[in-house]
Parts: sequence; structure tokens; C-alpha cells
Amino acid sequence: MADFKTYLSERAQFIDVLLDQWLPAAETRPASLHQAMRHSVLAGGKRLRPVLCMAAAEACGGTKEAASFAACAVECLHTYTLIHDDLPCMDDDDLRRGRPTCHKVYGEAVALLAGDALQALSFELLAKTQQGVHHSHGDMVTELARASGSLHLVGGQVADVEGEGKELALEDLRYIHESKTAALLTASVVLGGMAADATKEQLQGLREFGAATGLAFQIIDDILDVTQPSEKLGKSAGKDVASQKSTYPALMGIEASRAEAQRLTAQAHAALEVFGPYGKRLRDLVDYLLARDY
Amino acid sequence: MADFKTYLSERAQFIDVLLDQWLPAAETRPASLHQAMRHSVLAGGKRLRPVLCMAAAEACGGTKEAASFAACAVECLHTYTLIHDDLPCMDDDDLRRGRPTCHKVYGEAVALLAGDALQALSFELLAKTQQGVHHSHGDMVTELARASGSLHLVGGQVADVEGEGKELALEDLRYIHESKTAALLTASVVLGGMAADATKEQLQGLREFGAATGLAFQIIDDILDVTQPSEKLGKSAGKDVASQKSTYPALMGIEASRAEAQRLTAQAHAALEVFGPYGKRLRDLVDYLLARDY
Repeated sequence: MADFKTYLSERAQFIDVLLDQWLPAAETRPASLHQAMRHSVLAGGKRLRPVLCMAAAEACGGTKEAASFAACAVECLHTYTLIHDDLPCMDDDDLRRGRPTCHKVYGEAVALLAGDALQALSFELLAKTQQGVHHSHGDMVTELARASGSLHLVGGQVADVEGEGKELALEDLRYIHESKTAALLTASVVLGGMAADATKEQLQGLREFGAATGLAFQIIDDILDVTQPSEKLGKSAGKDVASQKSTYPALMGIEASRAEAQRLTAQAHAALEVFGPYGKRLRDLVDYLLARDY
Repeated sequence: MADFKTYLSERAQFIDVLLDQWLPAAETRPASLHQAMRHSVLAGGKRLRPVLCMAAAEACGGTKEAASFAACAVECLHTYTLIHDDLPCMDDDDLRRGRPTCHKVYGEAVALLAGDALQALSFELLAKTQQGVHHSHGDMVTELARASGSLHLVGGQVADVEGEGKELALEDLRYIHESKTAALLTASVVLGGMAADATKEQLQGLREFGAATGLAFQIIDDILDVTQPSEKLGKSAGKDVASQKSTYPALMGIEASRAEAQRLTAQAHAALEVFGPYGKRLRDLVDYLLARDY
């Protein structure tokens, strides 16, 4: 695991350098907008989606460089959703990745617009990916747009907001987690695969891996929200309880939630069989996610 | 002009039918989100950007059908910016296209997310355009993402918000109008051209036409805001004055503003010379925009 943590932090650093380079400079007009975008994107974070994206490319026999635009695209997209999520009309959160949220520093209007601009940038970066034989830019854009659109990511956010204060059925909570979290994690690995010119079979493996890993990840997030303090999470802890959100631990208890995350992790492992030894990093990643405590 | 108004309304209807068809149905889960998206997109409106997009395709020898996905993409993108613009943290507007604004009906959170989802849908639709020989999906996505990103559309919105209550220099106001309005109008005609497999020369003509037309359009909007009542505009009139925004009439007077719009219109005509008789609809369009009173 020590070795794997080194790998993770090296990959996160690789992405940090590229994001810094590919985001417009802080003084670019209008400066407040570009500062706001950089404030949120360059706040550190685990860079889980980019790391997954690059590891998926490598599992398909490609390089991390081949997937670098796609990796930064999914991180920009993820960051836009965090900025909008934190706005007063949504979760109204002050702390994110251990720093004041975007609207706390730049005001609501600029934060809203920084999120909007990051979504556009995400598609712009994605379209810089070198195309292979099997997947066009059109395929990649379709993948990201669907995963992040009204039927998946944004749809999940709406269902999440509307579910506050209600006790949801497990099935509805699963829909929210699958839409809000698993869809973009899946797109991250699928885009990494596309950037590495994956075969149909490989892409199918990545899709199954992403779906299982994404749901496991969100269940563990639910567990950590009730078991860990804010300092460790780098965001406000206990906010699911505070905003009366249904969570896996609330609906099925902590132990059963852990067992469900374990079952999904095994499912993710099974989906990686098609990659043989090349799937090692993705296997390590899902194990790491299961075991994490922040 | 009567003949041209018929053309315009036929084209708007053509687009209305497609938007209705390509937006997820109102009952699609989550229903509130899809209703909010449909509320704002299907509120009528002149469909100026889609009409420009299709007319540009025809100027390049293509069909309106070839440009139909791109046309709906720019309308979805435009609509997302309207929804976000109307939010309380931005212009805080109650009326849009003669109807209550999205957040007035569906609440702020759902309106915010409906805008986000429309941006994603916009790229998804664009990627359905049939590619020609000269322009790939990558080129199209890059065009739309840049025009709508932090260096253009969103950048212009930020400069606009930050300019409230200040007397701007004409140069700064021009920057705002070029970014906020002209960039997406330009992308609309350029994407129409790309969908019709335009030559380099044609695309350059469309770019110059879009820039001049877009700026003229916004200057006329500024004029109408002070000279026309809300009922005619279908949105709150006098809001530029109310929010202490700099406008062309405020900076250079109504007559000089009209003259500037006329000069830009002549420039737009000149840019169309490369299209010969095929440029007729675009010529009519810019004349119509100059003469409009709503």
C-alpha cells in the first residue's frame, strides 16, 4: 500500500502540473473568473478521476500521456460540479478540500460562472485527445456529455436535492449514487480506454469496473461522513445527517454498508479480468478506495 | 420583409419541433429537471442563433437539415446562459420570453442544474452532426467550447457583472458585448458552415459576418432596452438602467449608437460577398436585426 500511495501522489502531481498549464493564467481577463477557476481546480484533492482515467489507458496498453487531456477534462468537469454543489442554493458549504469554497472567496456570481466555464473547458480539453482507430472525438464527447447530463450526473444531483428530509428507499438512493458519482467515474475510465484506442471488450470491462467502483466509492463516502471528523475529510463532516440526506449507513447500517462496498469491490475486480496483469493499477485503486479513511 | 418574417417563423417552427423531440420527455426521471429544461428551451423566442446556423449552412451550399443538430446545440447553450443569467445571484429576473423565469417556477437549485444539464446536452447534440471532409467533431466541439468558455461568453458575463454601477470605457463595453453576445452568434454561423463542409474562405467570411452582426445585435438590444416597454420585449425593460449597466446609448447617445449598428451591418454585408447569391438569407437576417423593434 505504501508503494501504491507513492504511485497515487506521483500521478496526482502529474495532473496538477498539466491543469496548472492548461487553465488560463490567473491574470487572464477577466482575472477574477480565472482566479476562481484556478482556486477550485488547483486546490489539490486526490485527483481520483484523472488517475482512474490514466490507469484505464494503461490497462488497455496505452500511456498516461495519451489520456492526459481526457484526465484533465474529467477533473475540470468534476470541479465544476463541486463549485455548483457548494453554492448557497444547493448545499451551502463553506469548506471544500480544506479551503474556503469558491463562492466564499469570489462571490456567488463569479463562482456560478467559474463552474460554467469549467464545464466548457472540459469539452475543449477532451477534444484535444489524439484519436485512435476505434473512437472518434464524437464518441468521447458523447460519453462525457451523457455521463454529466440530465440523465446521469445532473439528474442525480436533482434527485439528491429533492430527497433531502425524506427517507428514501434503498433503490432510490442507489439511483442517486449511480447517477451522481458512478456515472462520471465510469466515464473517466471509459475515456481513458478510448484515448488508448481500447477494443470493444476492453471498453465493456471498463464500464462494468467503473459502475461497481463508483457505487462502492460513494457508499464509503457515506460511511466516512458519519465516522470521520472534518479535519480528516477536508470538508464539513456530518453534513449528510445535518441536511437529512438518506445514506447507506442510515438505511442499512454501517456494517452492512461495508459489506456492500466489499461486494461491489469484488465485482470491480471481476470486471478487470480481461486486462490480465495490465489491470494491476486499477485493481490496486479499487482496493485503496475500499480501505481509505478520508 | 413580410416574406422574410414568414421565413423566420417557419425556421423557428422547424427548430421548435426538433428541440421538443431531442429534449428528454417531461416525465423522464427526474421529472422536475426535465420540465425545467423544457420550460426554458421551449418558451418560444426568435431562435435567432439556430436560424443563423442553418442560414450559414445554406450559404455554403448545404441544407438546413445538415445543420439541425448544431442549430439545436447553440440554442440549448444560449438557453442555459439565460437561465443562469436570471438567477438571483446574477440579474435576479422574474420574466423571460414573456414567461416566469426558470427559478421562479422550479426553484433556484433545479434552475441552476437545468442550466448545467443544457450545457452538457448542447455538446451531446453537436456531436451528432454528420462530419464532412474539412471539419471533424473535434473542430466543432472546440469552436463551441471556446466561444462559450471563460475567454468569451462566460468571460463577458463576468465583466458585465463586475461593470455594474461603473461607467465603463467604450472599449470595455465593446469587449463585454463581443464576448457575451458576438462570440456565440459567430460560433452559430461557423458551426452551420462546418456542418455544410465549408471551405476555409467561406468559414472566414462567416467569422467576420458573425462578429459584426453580433456586436450590431447587442447595440440594438441596448437601444431597445431604453426605448421599448417590457410587453414588447417579453422581458423586463429598462433593466440596464436599473442595474446601472453601461450601454451604447448611455455612452454615445441613441443616434450615434444607431449609426454604429448601421456601420457594423454594412461590414456584415461585406463579409458575405464570398457567398454571392447564396448569402441572401444571411443578408436579410442582418437587415432584419437592424430594423427590429423588439
